[in-house]
Amino acid sequence: MFSPLINELIAALRILPGVGPKSAQRMALHLLERDREGASRLSTSIAESLTRVGRCEQCRNLSEQSICSICANPRRDNQLLCVVESPADVIAVESSGTFNGKFFVLHGKLSPIDGIGPAEIGMAELEAIFSERKPREVIIATNPTVEGEATAHYIVEKARQYSIKVSRIAHGVPVGGELEYIDGTTLAHALNSRREI
Amino acid sequence: MFSPLINELIAALRILPGVGPKSAQRMALHLLERDREGASRLSTSIAESLTRVGRCEQCRNLSEQSICSICANPRRDNQLLCVVESPADVIAVESSGTFNGKFFVLHGKLSPIDGIGPAEIGMAELEAIFSERKPREVIIATNPTVEGEATAHYIVEKARQYSIKVSRIAHGVPVGGELEYIDGTTLAHALNSRREI
Repeated sequence: MFSPLINELIAALRILPGVGPKSAQRMALHLLERDREGASRLSTSIAESLTRVGRCEQCRNLSEQSICSICANPRRDNQLLCVVESPADVIAVESSGTFNGKFFVLHGKLSPIDGIGPAEIGMAELEAIFSERKPREVIIATNPTVEGEATAHYIVEKARQYSIKVSRIAHGVPVGGELEYIDGTTLAHALNSRREI
Repeated sequence: MFSPLINELIAALRILPGVGPKSAQRMALHLLERDREGASRLSTSIAESLTRVGRCEQCRNLSEQSICSICANPRRDNQLLCVVESPADVIAVESSGTFNGKFFVLHGKLSPIDGIGPAEIGMAELEAIFSERKPREVIIATNPTVEGEATAHYIVEKARQYSIKVSRIAHGVPVGGELEYIDGTTLAHALNSRREI
């Protein structure tokens, strides 16, 4: 019922995660009716990001520099490496405020059924770090899903070949969570990883 | 914690209605990591819409043509005019499937406190339609808010000057709604506008 260009804008907005037909329509009308300046800024920003944002040569995180600000920071521990699945996970770990090492971003997880093997998640680059930088410890922070665990296992095997200490972040009851609402698998993890006090 | 360009992209995405900091971050990473093609399409689509989409000269609805497809449609009743606040309302009325007249889009409602007077909502254009096209009936479909009612009242006064019949869409219990959950004002409207059966 809209004109073709507006329909195309609505369709284009639907590629955003969590945006359905109604939200897309609302967004399109908002951009065209109420915030043309913001819309223009958004269009430019997307275009510029697409052209200039690539991957950090060391950690594979998204960055417009060839070496990202974390990798370039001389005050961060070069011998401590945290392996995560995505750039969002880097932010999550950073927000904990307790990690001062470097990262390695897989951009995925091993999933043969989707055609994602070691090459797609940068295993060659990770192995190069293992052999050249020889980290003191590798912390694996992939998600506790089947693929995440398989990826973790694969990295553990690789790290052992270089005699590097490997650890996995703890899985258990979230701080502030109530036992009543925690699923059985998480509780099983929490019980098995219990610590003496 | 992101690089400057990604931070700018996240900030730019936040102009979209209903998008908070977390969603904007998720959208930015989605665009850069998983759907660069879609992102490029979105950027182009926004830019093109901004350049080409303006207002229909007759009904003020958003359109890339000078006369929109509804106004240009010879099979629509030119003597029946529905006045709505926004392009989204045109879609809403169209989806009812029972209206075959033309529209007039105010792009707002009278709100002196926000500096929105008759000129801002196209009253001169509406009066021109009243005097030239002389519609048989004007249906006022502004929202039942204080400003919407004030706007409706203003239009009624204008239409009376040209001896045009004016009507207001009915306000009452939505079809499928349950009395129990309807607010008092709506029920008062529904009772006052009751029809003999």
